[in-house]
This record gives sequence, C-alpha cells and structure tokens, in this order.
Amino acid sequence: MSDPATPDEQQRVALAVSTVIFALRPHPTTRRLAVHLPLVRRIRAPHQGRWALPGGPLGASEGLGAAASRTLGETTRLRPRYLEQLYAFGGPDRAPSAAERTVSIVYWAMVRPEEADAGVAGVNVQWFLADELPELAFDHNLIVEYALWRLRNKLEYSRIAAAFLGETFTLAELRGVHEAVLQRPLDPANFRRQMEASGRLVPTDEFRTGGRHRPARLFRHDESIHLADNGPLTRA
Amino acid sequence: MSDPATPDEQQRVALAVSTVIFALRPHPTTRRLAVHLPLVRRIRAPHQGRWALPGGPLGASEGLGAAASRTLGETTRLRPRYLEQLYAFGGPDRAPSAAERTVSIVYWAMVRPEEADAGVAGVNVQWFLADELPELAFDHNLIVEYALWRLRNKLEYSRIAAAFLGETFTLAELRGVHEAVLQRPLDPANFRRQMEASGRLVPTDEFRTGGRHRPARLFRHDESIHLADNGPLTRA
Repeated sequence: MSDPATPDEQQRVALAVSTVIFALRPHPTTRRLAVHLPLVRRIRAPHQGRWALPGGPLGASEGLGAAASRTLGETTRLRPRYLEQLYAFGGPDRAPSAAERTVSIVYWAMVRPEEADAGVAGVNVQWFLADELPELAFDHNLIVEYALWRLRNKLEYSRIAAAFLGETFTLAELRGVHEAVLQRPLDPANFRRQMEASGRLVPTDEFRTGGRHRPARLFRHDESIHLADNGPLTRA
Repeated sequence: MSDPATPDEQQRVALAVSTVIFALRPHPTTRRLAVHLPLVRRIRAPHQGRWALPGGPLGASEGLGAAASRTLGETTRLRPRYLEQLYAFGGPDRAPSAAERTVSIVYWAMVRPEEADAGVAGVNVQWFLADELPELAFDHNLIVEYALWRLRNKLEYSRIAAAFLGETFTLAELRGVHEAVLQRPLDPANFRRQMEASGRLVPTDEFRTGGRHRPARLFRHDESIHLADNGPLTRA
C-alpha cells in the first residue's frame, strides 16, 4: 500500500451528454395521456438511420449540465426549466461499433404539454411513446427503460408529478399524471386520501370551473419540497 | 435542423472513478457513533500530500462499477457488498491544476462496523470523520458534502440505514444509526411510531438479550425493498 492510486490516473474516453425528456401527450389511438419522449434520427454511422436520445459533445469549457441543456436545445428546441443528472452509462460493450470507448452522462427532465408543443418539429426529430419504442441506437433503449423505472419509483416519494403540471392543478389532473406514468387507473377516493396523507399538497382558494363538472378546487405543491434539489451542488 | 448532433460526437476527457464509503464508528472524543469515511493520501502532484477519495483508473475493458470496486479494494482493502452510482462530477474548473479535463464518476456505499474494521490500515489510508474533514484534493470536499446530503435525505424514504446494520437489529440500534447520520437525538417513542408507520420493518421472533436492559425484539427490513435497486440496470 505504498502507492495508493488516486483519481488522477485515468483512462481517456470519449464523453457524450444525452437527455431523456418526458412529456405527457395523448396516445395516438386511445387519446389517453401517455409518457412520450423526443428522439433524433441519426444521419451518420454508426447506427445511421436509427433514432437516438438528443445529445451531443461536451464543450471544452462547459459543465455537464450546461452541455445537456445546450445540445437538447439545438436538436429539439426544448428548454426545460431544470435538468437533473440521471446516470452515467459507461460499460465497455455499450457501443461496440464506435471507434473508441464512449461514456454517456445522461440527464433527464419532465416538461409540460405547452412546453412540449413549442419544440420538436422536423423530419429528424419526433415524439415517441416511451413504452413503444423502436430499436434505438447504442444502448438507448436501456437508458429509456431505466429512466421510466426511476420516474415510476420517484412518483411515490417526491413531487416529481408537478413537473408535468402548471403551478396549480386539480386532484383529478394530478391523478391523471399518476395514471399516465403508472399506466393503470387509480381509484379517485383512494388517491385523494393518499395525497392528503402525504402532506405534499397545499389547497388554494381557487377553483377550476367550466365544462360538465362542478368546480374543482385547485392545489399547489408544498414549495419547501424542491422539484430538483441537488443540495450542496446547487451552490457549486 | 438538418444535422442534429447525436451522442457520438464527443469531447475526449480523462476519466476517473472514485468512491465514498460511509461507516459508523465511535467519535474519538464523544465515543458516540458518527459517520466516517476512508481517505487516501496523495503521493504525487497535483495536490501531493492532501487526502483524497479512494479511486483510480478505469480499466480498458472494465465497467464503471467494477472499476470503483477494484480501485477501492486496492487502496483500502474494503469490499462492500454493493456499490451504487452517486453522481458524475465534470465541471470544467474542478481540477484546474490537472493537465487535462477530468470527469469523475463517483460511487458510494455503506459498510458495517465489522467490515470497516477489516480494511483501511496504513499510514496513507485512514478513516476520517465525515463532518470534520481537512481540505481535500480537487473538489472532494464538495463530493463528500453531496454524499452526506444524499445519505441524510435518503434515510427518510428508503431502507438505506440497514446498510449500516446486520440482518436483524433492535429499534434502539436502528435509532442509533439515524441519530448518527442526522447528528441529533431522536425521541424513542416518536421513532418507534414512525418506523411502525413506514411499513418497512418486519418483527422477528427473536430478542437481543444481555447487558443491563430487558430483552429487546429484533426486527429485519422488508426484503421486498431493495437496498440498492437499479431496476433495469441490474439485468444489464
């Protein structure tokens, strides 16, 4: 133990930054809300013609999150209010056709429907149903599967559902988000009880009116619970 | 949008893998359990003589987690049963003295006291109190601060405390873990109620006997709640 290795002895790798953007949009046949994500068609080898997560190179003087945000904007025109780091994918066999070993730092974000509609237009950029993807480039199917799994888990203990909604929302709208993400109907009375017990919702004095239904109270999330809280990293 | 960038256009960077290992050990003066981590003294520039997280280079055909496990074992002899990816640190200014831009993929794990005692011996490898660190190499103070913040948050919604304990434990032992991590005393009756309400604990038919106290029931965690659950990545 005379010469412990420390982190400045490294292997040089190619670094890519990619982003999984989730939005709830109507399913093309059922018209029910379903999780969608934007993909970009590759126009060069390897995997030319396949769809891939939006992403791109890390600028020489750019942070990882800044690179994710910039490349996402360039490819899809989407500008989510926050991006969160999801996971680093760097297995030796993840891109065997590439000339050199590639590590991808993957970010993710959720966007509201109106934000989703503002971006993603063009023959090489399209929204896809997250659960009905074609075979994507590299290991991007696995990355999306992992992101969906994290989203479904995180729904249980965080206010992540709020990222799909406006500042205020009805309980029915919030339940709609949960149903779309979990892909199953939820009992309205049980859902109301769970949300009330969670302590995460704050009732407002406003109501959603109009339509066939009676006015529904609007709620907001407890703002002391952050949507994307990186603790000490926020200051860095 | 005729040429969307996709993730194979990348910047080449130096890649390091580091690990934050947390263990509960008695505070040297108060003798109360406190969060400790092992650090390795750097024996070359930059930051020669400073303490740093154990880590090292990524092998050419090695996965990120495998590299973390191997370098940790080589520097500290610790062999945690699982390592979990914590975060990728890659800001452009994080190692200005280094010859080239370095991205560190950081893993973390918790080990039990008997595991902690089995490793970490030598003048260049020592246990440190996580909340009383000297100035470390690179941005490793920030990395440890972030890991501590994640640990304290995760205590609220996961069974991460179990990683510091054996298969079975008394409520007092579990409370001791929470108190050591949160650095404040917890009311025993309140703690018991919270744990019972969480549904995460399963009572056993066994009791801890001996000492000055009356026999205390042993609990185990609900095994359907995984300690380190990576969902789809576990299969990959």
